[in-house]
Amino acid sequence: MAITITRDQIDGFDDDRYRARLINSLSGIKSAVLLGTYNEETKVSNLAVFSSLFHLGANPPLMGFIVRPDISPRHTLENIKNNGSYTVNILKSDKMVNIHHTSARFPADVSEFDACGFKELFEAGTIAPFVEEAPLKWSMKLVRIVDIPENGTHMIIGSIEKILMAKDFTNDDGQILYDEVDPCLVSGLDCYHKVGKGKRFSYAKPDHCPTELVRR
Amino acid sequence: MAITITRDQIDGFDDDRYRARLINSLSGIKSAVLLGTYNEETKVSNLAVFSSLFHLGANPPLMGFIVRPDISPRHTLENIKNNGSYTVNILKSDKMVNIHHTSARFPADVSEFDACGFKELFEAGTIAPFVEEAPLKWSMKLVRIVDIPENGTHMIIGSIEKILMAKDFTNDDGQILYDEVDPCLVSGLDCYHKVGKGKRFSYAKPDHCPTELVRR
Repeated sequence: MAITITRDQIDGFDDDRYRARLINSLSGIKSAVLLGTYNEETKVSNLAVFSSLFHLGANPPLMGFIVRPDISPRHTLENIKNNGSYTVNILKSDKMVNIHHTSARFPADVSEFDACGFKELFEAGTIAPFVEEAPLKWSMKLVRIVDIPENGTHMIIGSIEKILMAKDFTNDDGQILYDEVDPCLVSGLDCYHKVGKGKRFSYAKPDHCPTELVRR
Repeated sequence: MAITITRDQIDGFDDDRYRARLINSLSGIKSAVLLGTYNEETKVSNLAVFSSLFHLGANPPLMGFIVRPDISPRHTLENIKNNGSYTVNILKSDKMVNIHHTSARFPADVSEFDACGFKELFEAGTIAPFVEEAPLKWSMKLVRIVDIPENGTHMIIGSIEKILMAKDFTNDDGQILYDEVDPCLVSGLDCYHKVGKGKRFSYAKPDHCPTELVRR
């Protein structure tokens, strides 16, 4: 049966966790990426799962993500503020348990790489460690942090600096074909998914329906 | 064979469309949502596919999305600026051709609802039309537009006002179970995907690996 949930009902939920699960899962299914950072003072790496990565532009190559105010302590944000370096790591769907484990509140002196079963990969010119097992990963340089006063979150804008692929996942026209990457997706706070084979369609024109591309 | 693509190589691509496809698809697989808006002056509805919707917070219930500067003319942004109302519509994966068709550059006097095969649903108290066929959809009220001077994009922050579900897709604990929604996902500019069945895991703790939840 069809149901309607009004803003008054959302605001009126007694259970904050119920509201958090509903609203967080409402925004859909997204990539579950691991962000790697490094504390140069303590020499401890940090790794944490985020689902809010989004494309900002290709030239210059920019991406954004959101840091919640209630993730406490926010090692990822502190490390990025201190040295401006972070990595984005796309893991295969068979790592979903390990990916979810990085969301636990580990103390600052514990590296989630060790605790959750991932290997660090340090590359010349990048302070933050990559996840060695990630078939697709790239380093980012902090561009700007935009504070969002409505709820205390922060949008982190960064530029893509170096892309590492375990094999060439790109098509002739530049598109990354995710069928072989088999990335891990997430909805809400704890629900993980595999993705089906992609279908590509022709450039959309007003006067006819797009057609599926045979050459992918 | 493993490959590396440096920032210099990205900046040096002669073909802007190659760079756009690579960088846009790099940000991963995301929900392909249709945003509905309404021009009160001309009485024409607008519908357009976006892949940058992200969760900002549950209390108040806020979401953001990015409007590119090169989507010209930007009917969605103009309509939102004029009346502050928009709808987010999650369509089933069997609508991927129709969803992609909304990305064509239709003239301002053409409604993508008609041109791409979707039905408008107007609800009391919401100016923008919903997509009737969407199993999961909600209305948004504009909160603030954040300009991103680095590349001329805009982040649109809005609050969730009313959620409409064709049936109750939520679990007891608030999580929306997407297995029955069967939402359409997208990578890059033209590659659409179905998603696999979700697996939920226990709240992550530092001292042990999360376990799969049997009760979903």
